[in-house]
Amino acid sequence: MALPFTIEAQTGTARLGRIQTAHGPVETPAFMPVGTVGSVKAVPQDVLEELDAHIILGNTYHLYLRPGHELVRSLGGLHKFMSWDRALLTDSGGFQVFSLGDLTKVSEEGVTFRSHLDGTSHLFTPERSMEIQIALGSDIVMAFDECTEHPAERERSRTSMEMTLRWARRSKEYFDAHEHEVPWTQIAGSTPATPALSGIVQGGMYADLRRESAERTVELDFPCYAIGGLSVGEPREKTVEMIAAALEVLPKDKPRYVMGVGYPHEIVQYAAMGVDMMDCVLPTRAGRHGLLFTSEGRMNIKNARFAQDQGPADPKCSCKVCARYSRAYLRHLFVAAEPLAGLLNTIHNLAFYLDTMRAVRHAIRLGDLSGLLSASVSLA
Amino acid sequence: MALPFTIEAQTGTARLGRIQTAHGPVETPAFMPVGTVGSVKAVPQDVLEELDAHIILGNTYHLYLRPGHELVRSLGGLHKFMSWDRALLTDSGGFQVFSLGDLTKVSEEGVTFRSHLDGTSHLFTPERSMEIQIALGSDIVMAFDECTEHPAERERSRTSMEMTLRWARRSKEYFDAHEHEVPWTQIAGSTPATPALSGIVQGGMYADLRRESAERTVELDFPCYAIGGLSVGEPREKTVEMIAAALEVLPKDKPRYVMGVGYPHEIVQYAAMGVDMMDCVLPTRAGRHGLLFTSEGRMNIKNARFAQDQGPADPKCSCKVCARYSRAYLRHLFVAAEPLAGLLNTIHNLAFYLDTMRAVRHAIRLGDLSGLLSASVSLA
Repeated sequence: MALPFTIEAQTGTARLGRIQTAHGPVETPAFMPVGTVGSVKAVPQDVLEELDAHIILGNTYHLYLRPGHELVRSLGGLHKFMSWDRALLTDSGGFQVFSLGDLTKVSEEGVTFRSHLDGTSHLFTPERSMEIQIALGSDIVMAFDECTEHPAERERSRTSMEMTLRWARRSKEYFDAHEHEVPWTQIAGSTPATPALSGIVQGGMYADLRRESAERTVELDFPCYAIGGLSVGEPREKTVEMIAAALEVLPKDKPRYVMGVGYPHEIVQYAAMGVDMMDCVLPTRAGRHGLLFTSEGRMNIKNARFAQDQGPADPKCSCKVCARYSRAYLRHLFVAAEPLAGLLNTIHNLAFYLDTMRAVRHAIRLGDLSGLLSASVSLA
Repeated sequence: MALPFTIEAQTGTARLGRIQTAHGPVETPAFMPVGTVGSVKAVPQDVLEELDAHIILGNTYHLYLRPGHELVRSLGGLHKFMSWDRALLTDSGGFQVFSLGDLTKVSEEGVTFRSHLDGTSHLFTPERSMEIQIALGSDIVMAFDECTEHPAERERSRTSMEMTLRWARRSKEYFDAHEHEVPWTQIAGSTPATPALSGIVQGGMYADLRRESAERTVELDFPCYAIGGLSVGEPREKTVEMIAAALEVLPKDKPRYVMGVGYPHEIVQYAAMGVDMMDCVLPTRAGRHGLLFTSEGRMNIKNARFAQDQGPADPKCSCKVCARYSRAYLRHLFVAAEPLAGLLNTIHNLAFYLDTMRAVRHAIRLGDLSGLLSASVSLA
């Protein structure tokens, strides 16, 4: 298990780097579009390639339920199944299982939950999560963690963090013994590449617990470290404080990944702090709901003031949507509930997020993030 | 008003031709994808271009209600609004208004109907239909006709046919006086092109009425003739009989358009009979419902037997969907209600229809349609 990571430039705490996955390189800081059930919602894979996405995320919980990890494995893994030969990261299933709330029951062994599709009962354990992610053929597998609910008392947060650490150890043990079972090592033949397992820092909203969680997760020795349990309803200053606490401890020569964030100005800020990877459903979900992210701020495309607006969604954007369609047309599509609306809005939003990260990388290379930071904060 | 039409080859009654519209050439026999509200549902315009669609259809009724023809005119017309610089044909609004059933009231003046969106009352007359289609900037405008309901007694069909003839005259008078008002003649400047008006043959399910309708419509002298009022529930032999009756009479040097048809084997048959243009929602609507048209027949992609099928939807198809994705993946997308399902299925179905017409044109050039006819009939 390895995940080669080279840092090519640094500006302040920000790093420009490159992660070498078994399915190609990922330039960091990277934003990862979310492809929940084996599809970045509405977007064909060739468009993701055009957008220059080098890594996307799949959700273990959803793929386990449908179409099922055994089916995906039998078809050669998720890359082959969805025809995506670039990198894939899968979450552990933990966060989404916990999101089911009353339908779940947590024990030392793992989490029992009921499917949101048919109510059937299932058990996720660290071992099971590893088995599923390996069957899917993920390049970057996430350790099975407990996403501490918010708000949570200190003692509850510590107890939860301790469980996540025990689960991290179990995840690693299972992963180390089974990582060679990914469907693509058997297929590729010539490339004896393996997936990598990422640890996850928890600790609720307590900076000292976050530091302790980071220290003890690092002791387990992962090639990548994620910071989980954020974006769960806490104020943003708290998010920043928790990220900062973990980053203090996490090794600088390994990729650091903040899960489930954020708005454009947030991902710029986190990248400036030294975060290397982020993912969020925001650009895709907001796009389907008619919310566009632009260099002029957020834009609700259904607003009547766009009815006759012949300009592009974002005059500074060079994506294929902004190059071709007007705000008036995008508004019409959305108001008329045309299926094309979701696709075009999503393409633009993904382009905006990926361009934002590209601009961050460029600024790190040039040695000055200040302009980008102040510009993005003004859009908050 | 003119619609240059050259016939390049003939095989039996089938014709290989080229219609020169103000927005480029259309090779015939042509299948026209339906872009109801200014969008071929789910499909971006660049993909329509890749599919080599040279003409698409817009629905006057829908565009009139939303976004409104005045808005479209003020934005430069439908071509510019939707960013489509190839040919556009608009229907008259008549068929869809009649489809509203109890919500409509027909008089000599026109049709009063209630919007399916908000229940407001509107009046379509021949003049109003022309005004709307000209405002939209259609290349081929359809005369306002009454689509006779099915079944209809002979006398009712005659009365309705007579009304359509009077409305055709009124359509033509208004059109001739206003065709120069299309938004794009004012914009293009150098190209003094104008739209063309197509007459429509009616006559219910009575061959002699169809012939009479054709004769009297031809007397009005249109550059294009459509055969309407079919695919309204009649048996297919009746459809064929009505088309044949009209084609006997319609001038051979003008394009002949059968509205609202059909299945792949039907469009091959009609092309063989001498029909030059067809349109149908079938490939797009069926695609969104998981029905794929293939060289092996119709395929319901949600069928469990495709769950592990790694082959393309159609092994003989070279569309971008068949080139990249498996039946197993398409089935998964459909079962999981992923928005990408509708797009991919629609792209394949449109490719299949457009490829079918391309094969028809090739066969006419080669002088033998028999193989194509028997192959397509076997898929019925």
